[in-house]
Order: sequence, then structure tokens, then C-alpha cells
Amino acid sequence: MIPTITAFERSPDGGRGLARDMHVRWALEEVGQPYDVRLVSFDAMKQPAHVAISPFGNIPTYEEGDLALFESGAIVLHIAVRHPGLMPEDANAQARAIAWMFAAFSTMEQPILDRTTAVILERDAPWRDQRLPLVDDRIRKRLAELSRHLGDRDWLEGAFSAGDLVMVGVLRRLQRSGLLTEFPNLAAYVARGEARPAFKRAFEAQLAVAIAASSG
Amino acid sequence: MIPTITAFERSPDGGRGLARDMHVRWALEEVGQPYDVRLVSFDAMKQPAHVAISPFGNIPTYEEGDLALFESGAIVLHIAVRHPGLMPEDANAQARAIAWMFAAFSTMEQPILDRTTAVILERDAPWRDQRLPLVDDRIRKRLAELSRHLGDRDWLEGAFSAGDLVMVGVLRRLQRSGLLTEFPNLAAYVARGEARPAFKRAFEAQLAVAIAASSG
Repeated sequence: MIPTITAFERSPDGGRGLARDMHVRWALEEVGQPYDVRLVSFDAMKQPAHVAISPFGNIPTYEEGDLALFESGAIVLHIAVRHPGLMPEDANAQARAIAWMFAAFSTMEQPILDRTTAVILERDAPWRDQRLPLVDDRIRKRLAELSRHLGDRDWLEGAFSAGDLVMVGVLRRLQRSGLLTEFPNLAAYVARGEARPAFKRAFEAQLAVAIAASSG
Repeated sequence: MIPTITAFERSPDGGRGLARDMHVRWALEEVGQPYDVRLVSFDAMKQPAHVAISPFGNIPTYEEGDLALFESGAIVLHIAVRHPGLMPEDANAQARAIAWMFAAFSTMEQPILDRTTAVILERDAPWRDQRLPLVDDRIRKRLAELSRHLGDRDWLEGAFSAGDLVMVGVLRRLQRSGLLTEFPNLAAYVARGEARPAFKRAFEAQLAVAIAASSG
């Protein structure tokens, strides 16, 4: 059965692969699972048909037979435990990979999304220039901790896993901030993720949507 | 085997059950699994022995034989899939419960933690009074979406699950904000969670630590 995911009809990032469907596309490409995409407009995301699947009106969703899922972390985990390629075989190592997934979306992404708020939603606020360095320091603290853990390893724990996939995806939000370059091993880690053939296929697929939208 | 979790030696919340060990204590109580607790000081949390288990220097951790886990979401999930009581039996319903876990720690908690930052870390910032209403409105948006989904149901999807456990735990951070009372069905949902005997046992256990610390 071919699952169907949803993605922005017009992604606010213009095809930089920062919308959360990118996590799911990448996971599906890593495990070799074909998928269909249904594009949704900002208006349609708030309508009952979409909200019935995704209570917070977000993309991506994932539909497969009777299953309708939301939250990119849960969707990636669903894919990772049902296909070889994204989870270690050892049960304890699997639990650690899942811990990294929660760490990416909770501990690491929280201050990074705060930065997005500061830069976009509070762009014109009088406190923007004074507050942004505080937000950046909170991100630096987490990056330093992650950098220390990673050291000179290729991936967070042993082989590439769903934990790396979502962590790289979350760190990519920092590309224009300059913060990643302060931690060369993390910059190299993200580059390693982006160099994976599955990442490239997923990136091209979401970019094609953005190009079609901008010429439409 | 009795697992060991870590918790704050002196929780910053003074025993209100808002530190993340509360999620794990509650989950263990729901499934009837006894556990040991190792208390850690703020200093010890940053030392190599703790960081080896918890790369971001946080509590709680969870140790059971060869397994050493971090991130409360991952720990609750680990408990929930290994014991009856916190996960529906149907595979699709399980995937939905896990989606609610990611929703709690990602979509819902992100603006709530931003509020904690605004109220505590940026308490004396000149923008505090102007910015807080913006943060509150972002939380209200998510609460309204959650309230619409919950409607007059007792729990998010069918029976009480790990998704409810962590969602109630995250919403409890709003108790002093006044925001929850704007959504009576959510306030009742949190109260329903807090009325569970397992919640009460977990709450008393963490409170006992705070009382011992304050009299120590």
C-alpha cells in the first residue's frame, strides 16, 4: 500500500526543505518506500477535513489504509519501526535512537523555534535586536552539549538512525543563523546528512513543489 | 529488575510536580512498576557521569540493566510499550497515541516553554510586559485547537493513554498563567488526570523530595 503524506502547496521556506514534510519524505526515501503527496493550501489546513487528521492544522500528515497520523516525529518513528534502515536491531539501541528523536523535537528544537519567532513573527518588535542574542545563547548552550556528545563520530550513536535524521533536520533550521559554523563537528554532521542520496531525493521532491508553486 | 530514575535534588518548582521526572514517575505508577530514585544536584547534572547518560545534562534519566535512557518522552514511551495500561492494543491506535506524545512535547510545549522563558529568564527585561501577551496568544491558539479536538471527551482518543499522560503533564505548566481556565474542557481534562490514583502517588513522591530538601 502506498502511503499519502500532505505538504504545503506553497511552503513558506520557498523550497529550502525546512517544512516538516521534509523529515517524512527523507525517512520514506531512506527505507525505499514510495509515497504520494497531497498538497494543501494554508486555508485548507484549517478546514475540518484536514483538522480531523491533524488536530493542530499542521502538515505533514500520513495516511495508509485505516491509519491517519500527524506529527512528523511520530510519522518518522512509525516508518522507522516498520522498515529496515532507520533503527538499530538491538532493543536498547532502539530506545536510545527514540530518545534522540524526542531530544531533537523537544530539547533542541524549542530554542531554535524561539529564534524563528524572534526573527519572523517579532521582526518589527522594538526588542528584536536586544533579545536575539539571548535566544542565540540558549541555542549555543544546546549546540555545545550536542557537539560534545558527537565528538568525532559520524552519527549520534553507531550507525545512522531515525534519531540522526530528525536531529539533522532540526539543525538545518539554523543554516542562515551562522550558529552552526561555530561548531565545526555539527556543521560537518549536517553536511553528512545532506549528502545522503535519500536526503537528496527528498530535497529535490519538495523543491519541485516550490518551483511549480512559484511559476504557477 | 527495578529501574532507577534521576530527579532534582532541589527541584526549582519546589514540589509542584512540574519537573520532568513527574511524567516518568506517573507512568511507572500507572503500570505498577516499582522504581528507585537517585537525586542529583545542579552541579552533578553537568558532570561526566550524568552527561554520559543524559547528553544535555537534564533529568530524568532511566537506568534498567544495560539500558540508560534520557528524554522523558522516550522514557514514558519505553515504559508504555513494555507494560499494559498506557497504550491501546490496536496498532493504529498506538501510533495515534505516540503522535499525541510528540504533539505534547513539540507542538504544545514549545510556546509554553517560551512563556517560562519570558516569565523567569526574561523577568527583568524591558520588553517583558509588552511581549508576554504575544506569547500568551500563541499558547491560546494551541489550546483552542486542543480544546476543539477534545470536545466533551474524557481523553484525547478513547481510553487514557501515554498521550494523555504527557499532554496533561505539559498543560500543568500553565496552572499559574490563568490560560487554562479560558478553556473549561481543558481545565477539566487536567483535573481528570490529576485525580488518577497513579498521578497522586507520583505527585506525593516528588513532593516528599522537595519537603526533605527544604528542611535539610
